[in-house]
Amino acid sequence: MSDSALTILLAHGSSDPLWLQPFFDLEQRIQARTKPVRLAFMELASPSLDDVIADARKNGFQRAVVLPLFFAAGRHLRIDVPRQIEQLTQQWQMDIQLLPPIGEHSLLSDAIVRIAGEAIDASHPSDHT
Amino acid sequence: MSDSALTILLAHGSSDPLWLQPFFDLEQRIQARTKPVRLAFMELASPSLDDVIADARKNGFQRAVVLPLFFAAGRHLRIDVPRQIEQLTQQWQMDIQLLPPIGEHSLLSDAIVRIAGEAIDASHPSDHT
Repeated sequence: MSDSALTILLAHGSSDPLWLQPFFDLEQRIQARTKPVRLAFMELASPSLDDVIADARKNGFQRAVVLPLFFAAGRHLRIDVPRQIEQLTQQWQMDIQLLPPIGEHSLLSDAIVRIAGEAIDASHPSDHT
Repeated sequence: MSDSALTILLAHGSSDPLWLQPFFDLEQRIQARTKPVRLAFMELASPSLDDVIADARKNGFQRAVVLPLFFAAGRHLRIDVPRQIEQLTQQWQMDIQLLPPIGEHSLLSDAIVRIAGEAIDASHPSDHT
């Protein structure tokens, strides 16, 4: 167990439950893999990153990897989250690694380009005649 | 021209230029296709949806399709944006269609699951021995 890392999917959060739901759905799909995965929200929703890290430590994890489910690295990911992770690292004596946001991964931008392509094609039905 | 629809990629927006940049990059990649595409921000950044719709009308477009670059449909996409589109439709006598956010498209959730899978695999190097 001690060598295992918890992967944390970090979403922004919202007070709107309908906004949160797709992230819980993603957590479930990813948890269907065998490795330990948890969803956490940066603000406005539970569980918070603090909660998930505290749980992880209590469950024996010494390492965590945080994957931000964000399109881009704004101030939250450049300043607020690194500061919070530094504090949590010291508090729990845990190795916590912050990954780049998924928006910087080519798989995500490629998917967006394909989805936009579908929308564009569908909006020009006359081209298909 | 009159039968052509402008596709508008609608992002949330931010006062942080570093947050905006990936969306401008996406706009460029998608504009590399032949169909007319514009990026717009819901708030906090330019161009706004109002700006882009006004430009579109002046350039002869009678139709626009709005693809939200959002992970989920929170209050913004369920209430604020439809209300704004209704107002713009009347103001410009234009046919403006709001699509579901890209986060509801299986291509996007599949990409996120794959990116998370990579992160999980990378965090468990001992499994590969």
